[in-house]
Amino acid sequence: MELKDFLWSLIIIYICARVMGELAVRIGQSAVLGELLAGVLIGGSLLGWVEETETLKLLGQIGVMLLLFEIGLESDLRSFLKVGLSAALVAAIGVVVPFVLGYGLALALHLPQLQAIFIGATLTATSVAISARGLFDLGKLRTREGNIILGAAVLDDILGLVTLSAIIGLATAGTVSWLEAGRTAGLALLLLSVAIAVGIRYSHLFSRLVNRMNTRGALVIAALSFALLFGYVAELMRIAALVGAFAAGLVLARTEHQTHIAAAIKPVADVFVPIFFVLIGAAVDLHHFNPFNEQNWPVLLLAGGLTLAALVGKLVAGLGVTGAQANRWVIGVGMLPRGEVGLIFASMGLTHRVLDEAQYGAILFVVVFTTFISPILLKRAFKGS
Amino acid sequence: MELKDFLWSLIIIYICARVMGELAVRIGQSAVLGELLAGVLIGGSLLGWVEETETLKLLGQIGVMLLLFEIGLESDLRSFLKVGLSAALVAAIGVVVPFVLGYGLALALHLPQLQAIFIGATLTATSVAISARGLFDLGKLRTREGNIILGAAVLDDILGLVTLSAIIGLATAGTVSWLEAGRTAGLALLLLSVAIAVGIRYSHLFSRLVNRMNTRGALVIAALSFALLFGYVAELMRIAALVGAFAAGLVLARTEHQTHIAAAIKPVADVFVPIFFVLIGAAVDLHHFNPFNEQNWPVLLLAGGLTLAALVGKLVAGLGVTGAQANRWVIGVGMLPRGEVGLIFASMGLTHRVLDEAQYGAILFVVVFTTFISPILLKRAFKGS
Repeated sequence: MELKDFLWSLIIIYICARVMGELAVRIGQSAVLGELLAGVLIGGSLLGWVEETETLKLLGQIGVMLLLFEIGLESDLRSFLKVGLSAALVAAIGVVVPFVLGYGLALALHLPQLQAIFIGATLTATSVAISARGLFDLGKLRTREGNIILGAAVLDDILGLVTLSAIIGLATAGTVSWLEAGRTAGLALLLLSVAIAVGIRYSHLFSRLVNRMNTRGALVIAALSFALLFGYVAELMRIAALVGAFAAGLVLARTEHQTHIAAAIKPVADVFVPIFFVLIGAAVDLHHFNPFNEQNWPVLLLAGGLTLAALVGKLVAGLGVTGAQANRWVIGVGMLPRGEVGLIFASMGLTHRVLDEAQYGAILFVVVFTTFISPILLKRAFKGS
Repeated sequence: MELKDFLWSLIIIYICARVMGELAVRIGQSAVLGELLAGVLIGGSLLGWVEETETLKLLGQIGVMLLLFEIGLESDLRSFLKVGLSAALVAAIGVVVPFVLGYGLALALHLPQLQAIFIGATLTATSVAISARGLFDLGKLRTREGNIILGAAVLDDILGLVTLSAIIGLATAGTVSWLEAGRTAGLALLLLSVAIAVGIRYSHLFSRLVNRMNTRGALVIAALSFALLFGYVAELMRIAALVGAFAAGLVLARTEHQTHIAAAIKPVADVFVPIFFVLIGAAVDLHHFNPFNEQNWPVLLLAGGLTLAALVGKLVAGLGVTGAQANRWVIGVGMLPRGEVGLIFASMGLTHRVLDEAQYGAILFVVVFTTFISPILLKRAFKGS
């Protein structure tokens, strides 16, 4: 990629994301919805102005890590632990029910076993990024509901590790090693807990180091490196890098520099984050969903059924909340978006040739629909609560 | 490039750049020297921890654009215009003398005409980035000397356009169209002046637009997009993108948001800029310069002669200063670093097979030596003035 093309892509992404984000806010919607639509608009299926290159994708990944790092930085670990049981139950229901519904529907439509499992698995995903950003846009991150949704979405990412390694095993070897998958996830959860505990215990060393540095930009680079390092370790453990960045934020939230780090990281996040959401939007190929094309009808029918399963499966997850201090409807809605996690699952099915183009298209519809509807419903749900 | 490898590269770059930068400052040197050395250390010829990938290179390019954007933002256009004649003379002498010396030396060593021209041309380069960063580190950007060096270095970039298109013509077609090259450069200079003039005339529209936006990050994204756009236009005119970003900074320096933009862009620049300097360092292959390897002796001899020519050629450029209000020694020293511009020229010669490996190695030595010596000498020169 030449510098000229790269600059042009960035300019287009920033201008469109900003304009659409502003418009979304003007009509009372979440800014992230505007950024996603900006992606659809300038992506391959409409204007075709921006192509997903390796560099843009990596920058988007940094963006979503910074988003979660910021959220961790502004969070209080104790309020997460307080809702831990609820979050765990929400995550568990939100994985089991969509899987059963999707799997059952696929079998009812006479799809083979392997495809049915894959379809069910894809419905279990929750996009931490979209959930978190939707909550942020509404200023509801620090509510009890916000904590449960975020906690459950992070746990979902770790459960997704089980699911993903299981279905990849299915797709390649034809068998599932549940033991292996479970062990990987357990180890990941353990290491993550240890990293947070150790991090908090020694976070004063971070502060001392930063205080000793004299050159410009010490704080922002130290904080960023810390987030990247946690993300790197998470990747090594095969959890998503953004979960690691979130943990890094939780750790640094306990240091004396918390407010300064948040202030310095904010413009950096503003530069990277929109790239992520625009690319998610740009990955949507609208041609699959054109109802005037007869060939799309089977896709759309399957998509309709799966969407219903996907909605019901996550909405009932809200019932996992223990006690009565949280709005269960808000939580169900907040868990809806499949986002980038759903996209990864679906594309894994396509590349391993478990799903055909039509099934892939149908799942894509579910991912897109739940991703776009969640910020809209979330706003309404909070109004009603 | 996988996310994991990308994260690792960034972590290594940030930690090494910071540690070496801090060490450089502790021993009384410029932080940029530390960052360059960090690059040499982790680059291919020593530790080999970081490889220059397309993504890292593009991020470095954004970094150098942001560096110049920041410098433009903190500059006063009028103080540049005030030293315009001096800057123009310094730039002209700093191009003509090194060219003549390098060309003459090469001919004296019985090198063919084409190679002699290429070698001379490479010595004319000035690295705006290294000059500016060296001045910044010393807090001398806003001095009269700082303005002259920066103005001359920017003009040098535009003169470099003439030189580069001329030598590429030479390398490919065997002839030089000076008329064509001169016309391109004239046009570039004209368009740049127009862009700055029009930009300043309508900069209030930028302020009005930013004031109307409600969503988070409006200012930093608007300012960044503006800088990227100017850089993009500069690339279209075949001037370096960083010159465009510098012009964008000069324009926005005149708006009411100047201080806010500077504050918001600072952490973003802190994140991108080190990547550029570390990559410059990492591009140095020390094996060419090992004096214990007999094969390197002709390279080192040629390198010695060319380095002398390179030093003298730029130092006498300080004589171009009109009036007596500036330290000519400081200016000559500030114009020394060939940096990334010299690297581009040299690699162009290698890829077009005008230079052989030995000649390329010798020029590389000149580039590296002048780049590393300039921040050191600059500090001394300012002390003496």
